[in-house]
Formats: sequence, structure tokens, C-alpha cells
Amino acid sequence: MVKVAVMGYGTIGSGVVEILEKNRARIKQTSGKDLVVKYVLDLREFEGDPIQSKIVHDYQTIADDPEIRVVVETMGGVEPAYTFVKAMLEAGKHVTTSNKALVADKGAELIALAREKNVNFLFEASVGGGIPIIRPLISSLTGDEIVEISGIVNGTTNYMLTKMTQEELPFDDVLKEAQAKGYAEKDPTADVEGYDACRKIAILTSLVCGQQVNYEDIHTEGITKITPVDIMYAKEMGRAIKLLAMSRQTEDGYVAMVAPFLLPIEHPLYNVNDVFNAIFVKGNMLGDAMFYGSGAGKLPTASAVVGDIVDMVKHMHTNIILNWDETPAKLADYKNSETRFFVRTKASKAEITEIFGIVEFVDIEELNDEIGFVTLTMNEREYEEKAARLSSVLQMIRFH
Amino acid sequence: MVKVAVMGYGTIGSGVVEILEKNRARIKQTSGKDLVVKYVLDLREFEGDPIQSKIVHDYQTIADDPEIRVVVETMGGVEPAYTFVKAMLEAGKHVTTSNKALVADKGAELIALAREKNVNFLFEASVGGGIPIIRPLISSLTGDEIVEISGIVNGTTNYMLTKMTQEELPFDDVLKEAQAKGYAEKDPTADVEGYDACRKIAILTSLVCGQQVNYEDIHTEGITKITPVDIMYAKEMGRAIKLLAMSRQTEDGYVAMVAPFLLPIEHPLYNVNDVFNAIFVKGNMLGDAMFYGSGAGKLPTASAVVGDIVDMVKHMHTNIILNWDETPAKLADYKNSETRFFVRTKASKAEITEIFGIVEFVDIEELNDEIGFVTLTMNEREYEEKAARLSSVLQMIRFH
Repeated sequence: MVKVAVMGYGTIGSGVVEILEKNRARIKQTSGKDLVVKYVLDLREFEGDPIQSKIVHDYQTIADDPEIRVVVETMGGVEPAYTFVKAMLEAGKHVTTSNKALVADKGAELIALAREKNVNFLFEASVGGGIPIIRPLISSLTGDEIVEISGIVNGTTNYMLTKMTQEELPFDDVLKEAQAKGYAEKDPTADVEGYDACRKIAILTSLVCGQQVNYEDIHTEGITKITPVDIMYAKEMGRAIKLLAMSRQTEDGYVAMVAPFLLPIEHPLYNVNDVFNAIFVKGNMLGDAMFYGSGAGKLPTASAVVGDIVDMVKHMHTNIILNWDETPAKLADYKNSETRFFVRTKASKAEITEIFGIVEFVDIEELNDEIGFVTLTMNEREYEEKAARLSSVLQMIRFH
Repeated sequence: MVKVAVMGYGTIGSGVVEILEKNRARIKQTSGKDLVVKYVLDLREFEGDPIQSKIVHDYQTIADDPEIRVVVETMGGVEPAYTFVKAMLEAGKHVTTSNKALVADKGAELIALAREKNVNFLFEASVGGGIPIIRPLISSLTGDEIVEISGIVNGTTNYMLTKMTQEELPFDDVLKEAQAKGYAEKDPTADVEGYDACRKIAILTSLVCGQQVNYEDIHTEGITKITPVDIMYAKEMGRAIKLLAMSRQTEDGYVAMVAPFLLPIEHPLYNVNDVFNAIFVKGNMLGDAMFYGSGAGKLPTASAVVGDIVDMVKHMHTNIILNWDETPAKLADYKNSETRFFVRTKASKAEITEIFGIVEFVDIEELNDEIGFVTLTMNEREYEEKAARLSSVLQMIRFH
């Protein structure tokens, strides 16, 4: 029997307790052990709830109990999660977390501490919710150089972009609907400004390059400026607007970015709608692979946490190798990366052609005071220089 | 340093040697060891080839060499692969194979032998080529009851159905093209009759139910009877015909089947084209997930083999738990499983309605001596009884 403690009895924490209960037989079969929740750390009491008898308020109770071998952290945020997780690892306990803020910020340090203590620090649920992506990266795609990893890693913005496309509604209306449905938080900044996606691609890039990526180094644009007119153009071009988090190996190191992109219908991420997430990986031997599933939600995310618990139970006395050390990763300047750019402008075709050379124009009949165009491939710096010379730029979205 | 032997220097075996060489630095980083190929077992000599010095013709040379810790089997077919693999496991060596025939037939026995010898027998490359699916099932989705697993697991037939759809060509022409491109074998039976897909879903079902599924128990239909007229109807209905291998948990156990299905545009497998494979998994907690990538090909498949090698090097002294024992699995009768059926017939609408009750008719103008219809949901047995009463059945394809 293995005794487990859960820190944070919110949506995901309670989901973990629920799965350990409901799928107990299956989990005993896959892990070889019976898993029992002994403590739940929370500020609240949960009076009358069956969980009440397991509630503790002091994390030291858990750290000091030698019976506890596995700890789940589902509180969110860097502090106090960091202090608590560190204490658990130092006490020789295995820890799994769903907390992307913690992993993006302190990943390398906690991985090193776990290694030192010969325990494990796993975080499958911190990226892509229920989709297995971290474990495939660290234990399946181990024969490949990962040359690109990109994906739709934020369910809230993907839901909103899907609604804006299908129902031709403006951003603000769709945000209200998403909030009403519980898909967006009251303060939606982290999602809609791309900060959540940024932390997730920082985690994936760190795992792929083996060093600590500072998420503040990643150029990040959200979806707040996407309008129904942009969606009209996307449809006219047979494309979909998706918020992509991407990371690509270049001669100067990995280059990472979060921004809306216009994807063609053939792209594997084109059809990823609603709250679904998908992560696309390109290996130098494997070629293209994609992992798709529920990127958020109580049970899917908790399912990934439980997968980590089982893996830790199977590696009770072995540290699972993670190539992510504390050396700061030097990302390549995104301004050197090349793409095509879709631009909306009030400028004349003559002016556009003079500045950008050959472009493809996108003319929408109903819009008579503006025009869209798609540039040839150029780097971000070159685009910026040219765009600064254009008399009007209403919008720019990258083309994939 | 870990010494490796490769048995069978065909497409995949030579790919494994190539990856171990080309990605040597990366593999040293992920496995923690330097991997060196010491022997290659093959009947041929490969004179003048750099591999020549490593060629051996007797598998006992490998079995008897205590330096060899890891053996790769990429010969294909049940014998002599089975004899060789068994000898390697008995000699205390770890084995990975890409050989679906061997795994479908002898999986449980070889897993048990590996466990007894405290080594590992892994087979990621036997299903889905380069797509990580076996390891996610056994080490990520461990908190879930897997209630369904289905997918496009044969690249040859998917390529052919894609061509038949895009270029409106008949089966025979597309087969010739696929053979010319090396996507189909000279004797294409195993692919086009669904036998290859059948073995793969037998492996996946065994892993999910924990017992030995006999692939001969799986109802299997291939794509040889699919015609351009069927494709016309599919397009008329906005659907795509895909050869699916599927397995679903029912009250009477898992029910498995391989057959062409008509998929709607919203289905995650609808857009999986050409030689790509995709495997869809539904967990009772996770919900839907999908794994997509190159289902065949030298380097993608070899990449999966190398992923296994690295995993075995990381588990040199630990047997990785696989829940697949020798108890024969009792599959549920597929005739009790329910679906909708698309039927082409020369019968009148009156006759169809009399026998099948409410149906949706699909009328194609150019075809004036036949009509298509889609039934309501019913089980296979009920469909068979009704179809036997219909004066003509030109074709039946299941609706998803």
C-alpha cells in the first residue's frame, strides 16, 4: 500500500481523489500497489464532506509523516507551492504537480533536488491537460533530435477563437460566454494575453533543449486584438486563426514564440476546435507526430496527475532521467525567424507593392476601405522595417 | 557503454543502425549511456558495406556473448523470430521488436519470460510505426479504464483510400501505383484484406484488457470491395471511408473489429490521410485523446525501436510492468455491437422502408439503377437478418 497526500483540494485536486477512488482496481493493476489518500492539504474545512477527516492545514504534517511516499501539488501559483514542494522533495517524497507556473519558474531546480534525493518530480498535467506529452517526450521520443514542437496549448483561447469563427461574434461577447461557461476566469488575462501558453512552451522547450528557458524571453502575443473582420479574411483564404505556442531548433538555438497564426486546412492543427489542445512534434528521424486531447477540465487533467502517481510508484527507488538542468537557455532572437505575414491596411495596392514587392492580395467585397495581403517569406525584422514604412497597418497575423 | 545486436538488416533494422549512429550524442544524453552496435544478424554478407564487419549468421553468437545487453528484432514473421527472441530473453538480454506478427501471436509468453528473467520485452514499433502508442498506454494512461481504442493503423490502405478519394481511381489502379511507390508489397493481401490491422488491434486490445487476444477471433474486413461508386456516395454524404481497427469495452468484454467505416468531417480521424496513422483512445476519466504520425517508413519506425532501446537501457535491472498475461481473452460477439449501416441496393424505396423502417435515402443523380440508404442504429445480427430479406445488396459500409 502507498499513502498519498494531495495539496490543494480545488478542481484538479478533488479530481485526483475522485479518480484514485473510482479507478482503484485498475490503478492497483497498473501500478502494482493499492493507493490510499491519507491527507488533503487545504485552507478550508469541508465540513460534512467525506474528505473532511483527511484535511490538514499545515504542510509540515505531510512532510513529517514517513508513511507518505507520494505528494500531489494542485494548488497553482509559484508560492506557497514552491516552498511546500521543496519541503516534500527534501523529505524524500515523490511529487507530481499540475502547476505550470511552478514548473516554468522552478522546474530545473526541483528536478535537480529530486535527483539528489533519488525521488521523482513529474509534471505531465502542467502542459496539455490530460494529453500525454511530457512522458512521450522524455521516454518515447528519446532517439530523436526534436527540431520543432508547436501546438494549441490553451483551451480557453481555442474555445474563444472557435466560437468567433463559427458564430461570427466579437471577442468581448465570446469572452463573456466563456466566462459564463466556466471556460474563462473572471480575470482572463493569463489566457487571452497568451501568458499561460507562454509558460507551457517554456516548459516544453526546456525539456527539449535540456536547459532552463526563461519564459520572459519568449515573444508572446495574445488574441485580444483578433476581430470579426480578421475571421472574415481567414475564411476567405480557407484558413483558421489559432493561437500557437511554438519552438523550433535553429542554428542559433531554439526560437520560441506565442502568437495567433493563420493555418491552412491541411495543417494537422486546423481542425483542433473548442477546448481541445494538440501538440505537434517534429523529430529529425520520426518526422511529424501529433498528440491531441482534452487540454483542460477536472478529470482529464487529474487523469494525467494519476498517470504520474502510477509512474512514481513504479519508480519508487529510481530517479527518472529528465534532461533539464539549471543552465540558462539562450534562445535565438525571434526577429531572425522567417514566415509569411498577412496584413490588413488602408494603403493602396501601389504603395503595398512598392514596399513589399510581390504579395498576394485578399480583397473582400464588403470591405471597401481596406485591403488584405500576404507577403512572401521574410524574417520578423524585415517585416517590421517594411511595415513601419506602410502608411497604415490595421492588423498583422502570421501565416503558417 | 551498452552493446547492442540487431537481428535482421532490412528496412527497419538498417534504420535502427542509422539512427544510433546519427543521433548518437542525443541518445547518450537521453539514455545516459553510449550505445554501440556490435553484431548484425542477417543471411546476407553486405560485402563492401561498412556493416560487413558486424555481420553474423548464427543467432547463438549473439545469445552467447555476455557483452550484449540489448537485442533488436526486425526480421518480421513469427519464425524464426520467435526462436531467436526467446533465446535472447533466456540468455538475460533485453529485446525490442517491430514485429507485429510475433507480438500478436506470442506477446503474453514473451512478456512472461522477460519478467521471469528480470529483463524487458518491448514492442512500440509493432503498432503505429513511429507513433508513441504502446508506451503512453502502459505508462501514461494508467489511471484510466480504457473504454475504446480505435484507429487507422495501416498506412498502405490509408494511402490507397486517400488516392481513391482524391483522384477517383478504382482499387486496382491505386494498388498498382502504391506498389510502384513501395507503399504496398508485391503480395498486398496482409494489408488490403485487413490482416495487418487485425494483428495490431489484437496487440492493443491485449494490452488494454490484460489478456491474450487471439487475432483470429476478430471480425476482419479489408478494402478490396470498395469502389469508386462508394467514394461518390461518401462524398455526397460529406464523409470519408477509412479502414478502422477498433476495440470497445462492453458489458460482455471487449469487442474488436476491422472494417471500412464512413466517418463524418468532425471525427478526429477524418483528416488522417496518405500513409499517416492515428490512434484514438477514450479513457473513462481522460475522455478522448488521439495520437497521430507516420505509421510506417524506415526512419519513423526505427525511431520507435530506438525509443524502446533507450527505455530498456534506463531499466536495465527493472522489469517494466506490462499487464498482458497468457489467459485467453474472451471477446464479446461483434454481432451484438450496434452501429448505423450505409447500404447500396437496386431495391425500391418501398421495399427498403418495409424492411428497414425509417432510413435516410442517399440519391445520386448519375446513378439511376441503384439507391443508397442509411439505417437507424441496430446491431450487426439485426442488420444481417434484414439485409438477407432485401432483394439486392450491392454494398454495405458501417457508419461512425
